[in-house]
Amino acid sequence: MTAQAMNSILKDAQAALKNRLYFSAYPENPKAYAEDGNEAGKTAFSKQLNENFTELDSTDSIGWIGTEVSPYMQVGLGVHYPQFSVDALISKANAAKSAWISIPAEKKATILVEMLDAVKERFFEIAYATMHTTGQSFVMSFQASGPHANDRALEVIAMGLQELSRFDADVNWVKNMGKFDLTIKKNFKPISKGIGLVIGCSTFPTWNTVPGLFANLIAGNVSIVKPHPKSILPIAIVVAEMQKVLSKHGLPMSIVQLAVDTVENPITKELAEHKDVKLIDYTGGSTFGDYIEGLNGKTVFTEKAGVNSVILESVNDPKAVFGNLAFAASLYSGQMCTAPQNVFVPAGGIFTSEGHLSFDEVVSGIAAAIKGLVENPKMGPFTLGAIQNDVTKNRVLKTLENKNVALGPLECVNPEFADTRVLSPSVVVVDAKDADTWQHECFGPILFIVKAADSNECLSLTAASAENKGAITCQCYSTNETFMNEVENTMNEVFTPVSFNFTGAAFVNQHAAFSDLHVSGGNPSGNASFTDALYINRRFVWVGNRYL
Amino acid sequence: MTAQAMNSILKDAQAALKNRLYFSAYPENPKAYAEDGNEAGKTAFSKQLNENFTELDSTDSIGWIGTEVSPYMQVGLGVHYPQFSVDALISKANAAKSAWISIPAEKKATILVEMLDAVKERFFEIAYATMHTTGQSFVMSFQASGPHANDRALEVIAMGLQELSRFDADVNWVKNMGKFDLTIKKNFKPISKGIGLVIGCSTFPTWNTVPGLFANLIAGNVSIVKPHPKSILPIAIVVAEMQKVLSKHGLPMSIVQLAVDTVENPITKELAEHKDVKLIDYTGGSTFGDYIEGLNGKTVFTEKAGVNSVILESVNDPKAVFGNLAFAASLYSGQMCTAPQNVFVPAGGIFTSEGHLSFDEVVSGIAAAIKGLVENPKMGPFTLGAIQNDVTKNRVLKTLENKNVALGPLECVNPEFADTRVLSPSVVVVDAKDADTWQHECFGPILFIVKAADSNECLSLTAASAENKGAITCQCYSTNETFMNEVENTMNEVFTPVSFNFTGAAFVNQHAAFSDLHVSGGNPSGNASFTDALYINRRFVWVGNRYL
Repeated sequence: MTAQAMNSILKDAQAALKNRLYFSAYPENPKAYAEDGNEAGKTAFSKQLNENFTELDSTDSIGWIGTEVSPYMQVGLGVHYPQFSVDALISKANAAKSAWISIPAEKKATILVEMLDAVKERFFEIAYATMHTTGQSFVMSFQASGPHANDRALEVIAMGLQELSRFDADVNWVKNMGKFDLTIKKNFKPISKGIGLVIGCSTFPTWNTVPGLFANLIAGNVSIVKPHPKSILPIAIVVAEMQKVLSKHGLPMSIVQLAVDTVENPITKELAEHKDVKLIDYTGGSTFGDYIEGLNGKTVFTEKAGVNSVILESVNDPKAVFGNLAFAASLYSGQMCTAPQNVFVPAGGIFTSEGHLSFDEVVSGIAAAIKGLVENPKMGPFTLGAIQNDVTKNRVLKTLENKNVALGPLECVNPEFADTRVLSPSVVVVDAKDADTWQHECFGPILFIVKAADSNECLSLTAASAENKGAITCQCYSTNETFMNEVENTMNEVFTPVSFNFTGAAFVNQHAAFSDLHVSGGNPSGNASFTDALYINRRFVWVGNRYL
Repeated sequence: MTAQAMNSILKDAQAALKNRLYFSAYPENPKAYAEDGNEAGKTAFSKQLNENFTELDSTDSIGWIGTEVSPYMQVGLGVHYPQFSVDALISKANAAKSAWISIPAEKKATILVEMLDAVKERFFEIAYATMHTTGQSFVMSFQASGPHANDRALEVIAMGLQELSRFDADVNWVKNMGKFDLTIKKNFKPISKGIGLVIGCSTFPTWNTVPGLFANLIAGNVSIVKPHPKSILPIAIVVAEMQKVLSKHGLPMSIVQLAVDTVENPITKELAEHKDVKLIDYTGGSTFGDYIEGLNGKTVFTEKAGVNSVILESVNDPKAVFGNLAFAASLYSGQMCTAPQNVFVPAGGIFTSEGHLSFDEVVSGIAAAIKGLVENPKMGPFTLGAIQNDVTKNRVLKTLENKNVALGPLECVNPEFADTRVLSPSVVVVDAKDADTWQHECFGPILFIVKAADSNECLSLTAASAENKGAITCQCYSTNETFMNEVENTMNEVFTPVSFNFTGAAFVNQHAAFSDLHVSGGNPSGNASFTDALYINRRFVWVGNRYL
């Protein structure tokens, strides 16, 4: 990639940050890439199975570990990664600091874009690695871990460059004092904070990791990536490519390190609590997230659990709405942080362009749409993907016990992988007053249809839920402009964005880089947002020096 | 002030935010204002003594309180302000919220600039109110509480407008999906957080209060100002003028409220802990500041204690340096948060253009410069001003006991106020290893000259002190470029700005709006900075809605 092309991409990205129009530097369609890319990626992935992953800097490593299991094959991948002590990770990071800090921001941006360019060459391999760690379908694996992740990373580089040049660097300040001028030379420097720790999750190992990672790096903070022990390979490939680019530029590879651990012997807390770790990015459950947020003297960026709601008030085309909802709930088996969980429906039912639908008709409409999707052999297996782990599957099954289940798990055979861990979305009908059932995150393939007194109660329950338990998304179906305004204002007050009347190809689950802010940072679902100004500015400190 | 003039000021201010060149919208020279302004202001102040301050909205007030004492007269001012219960303050603030939120940011900015314009008309009265609550000299009172405070407020309005329009508000997002375009209408809204509490300090009642206050307001947060119980009148006049402008625009006055209390019956904690208070700005001591920072679920901006250092390595003109240091330490009797406290000098002395000076010669040079300044009847009383309270005076006197005092308190008679609470700066010589003596803030007129092994130890002690105890300023005198670079880099790493070789009219104490960042926010002296992007962006949350 030429320097000119890089500058042009960064310029376009910065424009998109303001105008929020559609922008992508990495096409999401696999067909836009090399014709043999798919085959080559699949082969590379297969060759890596049961082998040590040797592409990473392994200086000072103390062994090889790795315990990933494919949700499609339900057998271990057998990939092992270099293991490091926390002391080694920290001391290598500290040793790399000054080399990275000394590079001007513009040059840092160029190197980071070059890394994304290198990662692009491995999109297919990353896709298969993502499939066989997260359980995502191939297409989602490709898009989320490849182009969409790269776009999110590019977004923070662009935002970073913008913020790092917010103040002119060298200034001749002249103040007229009456009989003479007082002239002071000033410089303004963005000072990085120290070592950044980026803690990944099991479901989106690159998409949720690269924003914090690249934001740290553009702001001058060397970084340690601590992937989820069950979802390492996708980000290992990314970090390996990043290290190669660093090496090519004569820079220490340990500017970016991968800190692999196991479920049995986790090192996350030791890393997070280390005095030299100044920044922590975290994606995952709320209990650990609250612990991370509570650590003293750290700058923390979190994405935690949320309970996403849908309000059904009135619709034009019920079939299109139920179909859209069914897809949003089924995509990756509800394991997206943006997936809907609670559908609030007035007890009296809803009005549609095709007449009134009773509450029960709404329930059966949604259940039928999910059933139709799951049982469509061309759609079902590829929409559902696989359940990442047994805990999720068992928790959902347990939740169904003694409930009013309108739709239970259906059979859905994956034509390629007979051993896929499958669980199709269930639909549970619940009364608004049974808040113990629906008012907390039930991560995985389950949709609660909550019977509320009327549309006002639908809204007030949705708002209270977002305020108290957090929400990343909210959907509203309504043909009533007054009600829509009320929903927008009420939900925005609890810092929750609303998507209205999504049907067809628009899905609430999808947040596009450069346009949609992912997590507002204002409710309990997380304290940070991809990508607002805070996401960059909190990673460094402006210091101004003065010379007479 | 015309709308055009306001827009032009805001535009100039926004340019200055980037270029950091000299900019001021409010001349600091009293002579730039109405010829009879001084007399009129003095008269207005005198008339207010021993009277109720009736300019503020007093709806739901429960009495009149006020316990201010003039540091120049050492008698009570007798001014009483409306007293409110915490419940009344919060419920009035909540009632005013929607009216303020509904105004577009551009209009908010106009109203806020109009407020500053109204405050300008009372600069002289505010100056006398500041003198007789803080003990500042007349000139400092005028400049700091008047034009400099207004400039700082204008700075946050300009930064606010910039940040609030960071994203285009309404967007037609179009994504080509191959056979069709997916078009989604999006809007992006900065959502205010709730009620802001701004806690003032006794020494700079307006300068340290208006940045947080105007930042809250431009970001849509109604605000309650809790002044220091001994320093109310200056900010009471400001808030009264703000309420009048609100009223003129048909807006609730309680968009900005003044919450007066007494030292005996403080209400700060009750306010700070109230669930509806979402933002807290605080200036003051570190113990209370740490408590404020530790409150759960609040967005907090603090300026706490710091220990500011001077490194003397080598100088060109020792007399000019000692004179500058003497002035910096004497200005408002060392009661500025930017004043130097510790002067690090190598045990072997320093080189100057006039030859070598031993450590003792440096000590006596600084002591002589302070003595010369204090005992100059045209300079001394007006530079020192008065000590704000007895606690400061007594603590400094106590600190002098059993110390190696190179210069003790000198007589300094204020020609206008015989009862002025005076304490001229003392100079104490201390060894580097006696860190218990110098390595914490000794607020007030005292300068420690710390004997270090060499210039490297001067630097390492200064850096450690800034990292552990915080520092708002740091000065370095050196003619050695390599050493200067090292000082800049080392101090910047602990997020402390350095001023080099200030003599003449350049003083380390002065931080100019639109150019000098006040407090970096990166060391223990505070977590916020006037005015970086965080100072605005942390006060609201971006939310984006989508309509198919």
